Amino acid sequence: MRKLYHHILSPFCRKVRISLAEKGLQCDLISEDLSSRNPAFLTINPSGEIPVLIEGEGNTIPEHNVICEYLEEAYPDPSLLGKDLNDRVEVRRLTRWFDEKFAREVTSGLLIEKVIKSLRYSGTPNSVTIRTSKAFLREHLQYLEWLIVRRRWLAGDIFSYADISAASQISVIDYLGDVPWDKFPDAKDWYMRIKSRPSFRSILHDRQTGIIPPPYYSELDF
Amino acid sequence: MRKLYHHILSPFCRKVRISLAEKGLQCDLISEDLSSRNPAFLTINPSGEIPVLIEGEGNTIPEHNVICEYLEEAYPDPSLLGKDLNDRVEVRRLTRWFDEKFAREVTSGLLIEKVIKSLRYSGTPNSVTIRTSKAFLREHLQYLEWLIVRRRWLAGDIFSYADISAASQISVIDYLGDVPWDKFPDAKDWYMRIKSRPSFRSILHDRQTGIIPPPYYSELDF
Repeated sequence: MRKLYHHILSPFCRKVRISLAEKGLQCDLISEDLSSRNPAFLTINPSGEIPVLIEGEGNTIPEHNVICEYLEEAYPDPSLLGKDLNDRVEVRRLTRWFDEKFAREVTSGLLIEKVIKSLRYSGTPNSVTIRTSKAFLREHLQYLEWLIVRRRWLAGDIFSYADISAASQISVIDYLGDVPWDKFPDAKDWYMRIKSRPSFRSILHDRQTGIIPPPYYSELDF
Repeated sequence: MRKLYHHILSPFCRKVRISLAEKGLQCDLISEDLSSRNPAFLTINPSGEIPVLIEGEGNTIPEHNVICEYLEEAYPDPSLLGKDLNDRVEVRRLTRWFDEKFAREVTSGLLIEKVIKSLRYSGTPNSVTIRTSKAFLREHLQYLEWLIVRRRWLAGDIFSYADISAASQISVIDYLGDVPWDKFPDAKDWYMRIKSRPSFRSILHDRQTGIIPPPYYSELDF
């Protein structure tokens, strides 16, 4: 059976779980640490990072983007990249935007301050980092709204890795109760469409011990 | 004519220049700033990052990995990813390793301390950062040697994006005179093979005003 090493609050692991489900692929989930380096895990992935996918025949595929490119090549239907060359550029551009820029400016700071410090009992959250991350979040939601009022999905006509990457990041922040949905109705409408997809269901029901999401987190109509 | 917005000391821009040359594609180079955000450039790429490729018909392709995936799809011959599914996983895994882990642990610190501070006349280099980056460099060169004594090229039998990404990072550090080649003969042998490729020639002849590379930097036999 296919296996995925993951952590429920890692946006990059969520991205792979949703992608697998969109392609109709089952997998067993194995919990790994969100940030520390477990020596046994380094033998599976020398970079020490999750997610790592192990295919049924034992092939190891590390790193969320490597996994997603692999999934598209090994299981092309349904496509999450699109068929047209320029469409694929736009999907990959926005995927990178959320995986790198959004993650660096928003998710990473909130995860460190609100999750990692809490799980390790190490220090109180830094309010400046939290405030800065939230300010960046508003800028990114503005950009997301700019895109989504012009297009059916973030990168164009098809539901793609761009939507999956954006929703994976945002869903982690939503778990922490930090998304100001009332200020961003178009982003909210897009996220409601994502939440109602079967591929998103298991994500919404996972819970991290000691960190409770707001009541609307798993509601489809919120 | 195809255009590339770049900076001569950006490893990610070098990666795209080498990739274009390996695929036999000509382009005009347009110099951009290495790190600050030129407002006119933000209209070309809203993330503000170089490289950006503009195709002859005007299509804009930002971000080194998006560009490289695009080049492989638009100009598949010669392939820089390989044909076999598992080979492509290994090429992409190592490409990420050098683009992200190596860049974060080694190149980024050395570029900030030795290039960006110098170009901006802002502060003296931090010797702790330089020492840490060099320690990481030795670890990465060990890993590179571990790979290259087992394989013809870094990811396997074919010259690939993995070699291009690694050589792009290392060539910038070599420009700064920071690669301890005498300690890593197998890595040196691999880099000599890279330097002798026609795609690498223009990289070796570029010079940044005010920052002079060591004499061996552009020699093929060093």
